[in-house]
Order: sequence, then C-alpha cells, then structure tokens
Amino acid sequence: MFSNTEDSKTKLSELGEFGLIDHLTKHFSIQQSSTLKSIGDDAAVLEHKDPIVVTTDMLVEGIHFDLSYSPLKHLGYKAVMVNLSDVYAMNAKATQITVSISCSNRFTVEALEELYAGIHHAASLYNIDVVGGDTTSAIKGLSISITAIGTAKKEKITYRSGAKPNDLVVVSGDLGSAFMGLKVLEREKEVFKVNPNSQPDLEKYTYLVERQLKPEARKDIPELLEKLGVLPTAMIDISDGLSSEIIHISKNSNVGANLFEDKLPMDPALIATCEEFELDSTTVVLNGGEDYELLFTIDQKDYDKIKGNPNLSVIGHITEAKEGIHLITRANQKLPIQAMGWNSMDKEEN
Amino acid sequence: MFSNTEDSKTKLSELGEFGLIDHLTKHFSIQQSSTLKSIGDDAAVLEHKDPIVVTTDMLVEGIHFDLSYSPLKHLGYKAVMVNLSDVYAMNAKATQITVSISCSNRFTVEALEELYAGIHHAASLYNIDVVGGDTTSAIKGLSISITAIGTAKKEKITYRSGAKPNDLVVVSGDLGSAFMGLKVLEREKEVFKVNPNSQPDLEKYTYLVERQLKPEARKDIPELLEKLGVLPTAMIDISDGLSSEIIHISKNSNVGANLFEDKLPMDPALIATCEEFELDSTTVVLNGGEDYELLFTIDQKDYDKIKGNPNLSVIGHITEAKEGIHLITRANQKLPIQAMGWNSMDKEEN
Repeated sequence: MFSNTEDSKTKLSELGEFGLIDHLTKHFSIQQSSTLKSIGDDAAVLEHKDPIVVTTDMLVEGIHFDLSYSPLKHLGYKAVMVNLSDVYAMNAKATQITVSISCSNRFTVEALEELYAGIHHAASLYNIDVVGGDTTSAIKGLSISITAIGTAKKEKITYRSGAKPNDLVVVSGDLGSAFMGLKVLEREKEVFKVNPNSQPDLEKYTYLVERQLKPEARKDIPELLEKLGVLPTAMIDISDGLSSEIIHISKNSNVGANLFEDKLPMDPALIATCEEFELDSTTVVLNGGEDYELLFTIDQKDYDKIKGNPNLSVIGHITEAKEGIHLITRANQKLPIQAMGWNSMDKEEN
Repeated sequence: MFSNTEDSKTKLSELGEFGLIDHLTKHFSIQQSSTLKSIGDDAAVLEHKDPIVVTTDMLVEGIHFDLSYSPLKHLGYKAVMVNLSDVYAMNAKATQITVSISCSNRFTVEALEELYAGIHHAASLYNIDVVGGDTTSAIKGLSISITAIGTAKKEKITYRSGAKPNDLVVVSGDLGSAFMGLKVLEREKEVFKVNPNSQPDLEKYTYLVERQLKPEARKDIPELLEKLGVLPTAMIDISDGLSSEIIHISKNSNVGANLFEDKLPMDPALIATCEEFELDSTTVVLNGGEDYELLFTIDQKDYDKIKGNPNLSVIGHITEAKEGIHLITRANQKLPIQAMGWNSMDKEEN
C-alpha cells in the first residue's frame, strides 16, 4: 500500500456479481414511459409504439482509451455518447441502453463507481434509461460494451442510402478537434514520462481535450431538423472521420460528392494547434475521428430552412456516382477523397 | 511457423474493421419480418407490434471459457444460447441479436470465421437475425458481448415476481450435467498437461461435455406452455444453479419454497460421473450452473396440463415467505437452501 486512501478501497470480490450490479445501478431512475421493466429480471421489457433502432459499440482499454489520461467518469460518459450518436444518426430519439463491463481485479469498486457515475450522468442529461447490465471479471483490462435503443416514426428514420444528386451536404458543429485533443494528450503523456513533476498548461487546449475525453452526441440535431421541418435524405455520424463517412453515404446511396475545403467547419483552437503541431488542418478535419458530429444530406429546397443556423454548415453537394468523391481546395483543385480514418492516420504518424 | 497450415492463416489487420464485419456476416440472411434494416447502417431498425424484451451478456476468455477445450464454433453457439435463454425465461420469442467481439491479434480471420460459424448456426436453428455487430481489437484475449431482443404479448410476459403460495415449482430438462461436463474437461486438461500424448476416452461423458460446451436454450418451453394453455406465474433461467434461481424467484415474489430431493431431474450419466468424482449429485444439481434450463412456477389448477410431460418435472411448491426456502431430503430432512452458484462451488473445490 502506498497511501492511506488505498486502504479504504473495496475489492470487487467483496460485493460479488449481483451485489455489484445492484450497488452500481441503485441510483438509476426510470425516465422513459416506454420502459416497463428495467434491471432486475432475466430481461428488460420495453414498449415502443414506433419502430426501434438498435446499435452496439464496444470500447476496449489500450485500443479505444488510455486510462493514464482518460478519467473513468469521462470514459463512462463517452461510452454512452458513442452509442447515442449512432441512434441520432438514424434521425431517432434515444431511449434506453444496456451496459456490459468486464474488468480485471486491478479495478476497485470505487473505480467502477466512477465509471458508472459518468454513465449515470450521461443517462440523466440525455434522458435515457439504463435497463440492463452485466458486470464480469476479466483476466486483463477494462471493456465496456453498450447497446443503445431508440425510436422514431418509420417515415422519419434516415438511412445512409437516401442521398440524391444535387442534395446539399451538411455537417453539425466543427470537425477535427477530438483528434487534435488526442494529439495534445499523447504529447503530455510523453512529457510526463520524462519528467513526472511537469505541470502541463493545457488551458489553451481545453476545448480540444474536452472534445476527445468528453464528447457530446448531437441529440439536438434531430430535434432541430424536426422543428425546422427538414427531413434529411441520408445521415451518418462522424466517428471515423469525414472522408470515411462521406464515402459510406456515397457508396450506400450510389452517388458522388463534392466537398469544399473553405466550407469545412474548424474551431480557432484547432487551427492554432494544427499550426503548432505542423499538421495540415484540412487533413485533420477530413481524417480525424471521434467528433460524433452528424453528417447529412438535404434536398436543395430545404436550404432556406437551415441557412445561417450556427449549428450547421453546408460543406458540399451530392453528384452523380460516376463523378466520384472529391474535395475542391481553396486553390480550386479537385482532389479525390479516400478513406483513411483516424486509426490509419495515427499509424502513419507514429 | 510450426506447420504449413499456419502459413495460410489470414491476419485480422489484412481485412480492417469494415472488411472484417462484411466478411463475417455476409452469409447471414434475414428471417424475421420485424427486421426492417439489419447490419450496414448506423443502427438496425426493428418493428415489433408487441413489447420487446432486451437482455445482454458478456463472455470473457479465461473467466467464462477456456479455449484449450472449447472449440470456437461451439463457443459462438453457446454465447448466443446464453442470451436467448434469458429471452425465453421471460416467456418471450427471441427475434434478433447484436454481437460485439474484441480479440487480440493472436486470433486469425479463420478463427473468427469459426466463431461466427457457430453464431450463424445458432441464429439459423433458433430463427433469429443477427442485426448488428462490432468487431474490435484487444490487447489480450477474446470477449463476446451479445444483446438479445425478443417479443411477447404484454399479458404473456413472465417475471420473477409472480409466484404465489401453493404454486407448483417446475423445471425443464435435467440439471447438473453442464457442471459435471466442465469437471470432466478440467480433469482431461490436467491429464493432457502431464502427458500430451494421452488419448482420452470421453465417450461415456459425451452428454455431460455437450451440455457444457454446446448447451441449447429452451425455445421449446414457452411454445409448449402456449400450446398447453399454461401461463407460468414466475420464470427464470438456470444459469447460476437451481439454489440461486429459486432464491431469486422467492425474493422477487416475496414467497418461500420447498423443493424435494427425490424429484430433482438427473441424467443417468450425471449420477454415474458424480459417483466417479465422489461428488454428491444433489449438491451438483442445486449449485452447478450453466444448464440453461427454465425454472418456473404454475398455478396448481394447471397441473393436469403438464402432468407426465417428459420435458417437465414438478420439483416442489411455493410457500409463504416466512417459511423460508428448503430442500426436503430423501430422508425427509428439511434443509435450508442457500445461494452458492457454480462459481462459489468451483472455488471451494479448487
């Protein structure tokens, strides 16, 4: 034991599986009228009038997160966001999640409480119920597997496949920041390894780091589009990078696309930090992942409805499939867009 | 390389995440009319008229399975069964699953194909659709996280909480065999360690080993009960052992129970193998887990409807809560039943 605080930590084995789930979920309340039965039986029971959407994502320690700079509470929050983002990308409302966690005995009850505090915070803020869970041991590391359920009227559900030539390509928020937040955190980790007494001044990177560690899913965008009377023709969330996602929409819709470099939404902190790291900000915006913004296409007749909205940027338009997928640069060059994704970009640089 | 066959194995990185999911799920067809959209968008889209039940379970290498004696195809099959069993325990019909897998690079594409072949086989046989998936790297080991969805009319859904005094306690199939199958496999593993050339004769343990490695979920029981016109008052699946499950029903229903030792269903192979291992078969039946049989209670008036059915055994009756939960032995002793579960029993013995 290195400190007194360690003495007061509780081993997972002291509670056992059932005790642990009860303990971790006892503060969770039910907010959705569609939840007939939550945790506590062989299965949850849900009653939805409209079709449901179901999506699942697993986050694995050492692959998707690094606990040396990711606080457990943020990690719990992010694990929920990653899944809700997929629900919103169907133009649906998220309603329930199930959470499965496996972890080695290096994690204490208090550590899992932190993780669940983040999950609970996300569930409260986004008005979703945690209706099922499984907590199990692992030989090594921490994994979080979440399944999210949402609902939408059948005619509102938006697939990747509905984009048509001349549709406008729209994106919410700004892009690339989560990737640069990761770059900043990785640099600080290296500095810390060399000098554990360093006091990093991360203040100017606050926005970028927060985008990486505690992203928000765009619950507001389907709501906004509903209010504006806009039904997107295709939609996807940006988890792997803009290039990868526009290629998914193009392939699934059998169309092409032109995106305009000067329209890509970037935060000033992103531009400054790209300069500092000597990275091209357009490359980061195209290939940096984990922004969890929504990329969608709309019919041109809906342009006036979204025009000037600070949450939305029109970044291009859909073309015929044979025209391919291109970026029109500031210098008016036409460059083919290829899938890279942030994993690939990471590999190139490391 | 130790052999030529190894040369022809494909590294996971050769396919990439999207390629891998496409590759592994390309043979999966849609069988349920409630599946509007399966794999290939941000989320699956399902349309169920009746309420849905949702359950999730994670299997972790080194905790829930040992690849030294569990073939990957069987493992995939079992991972599906574990989840379907929870759906049937709600007296519901299973319709869809999502599958998330994380594994280290010691697994090849061919290994995951085996795993998915088992999942596919289970899905075909049990008439369910695999509608979502996530495949990701891990630093170490293999984890399988499955979420199962089912549906039932609201008035048919059976909880753990509906048992009433004088109800009969019924169990499907026989119990304890999966646990003894595990004992046999563990013994053979030890023998193999000492003498890798040993040729174990497992023939007389075939039933027990199959119950452990390739269990079947009791899809037929809700169908049978429907046909017989029996609505159980409470139901649970036997994953942790009969003791643990009758305690769950008793606590959730606020009742007690008497179970009769001479009524506990045991396979002849179980009895013989317990003798060989010098284990008490009643203890194994009460505390051995992973049988995935269904334990349920019915009103006495329904007794005639199930009487003599070879799939069902009446093993006791429900009492007032104050009477507690007891086993009435063959010698007519009344012993209190305590939760142990197979994990605890395992620990005691090892």
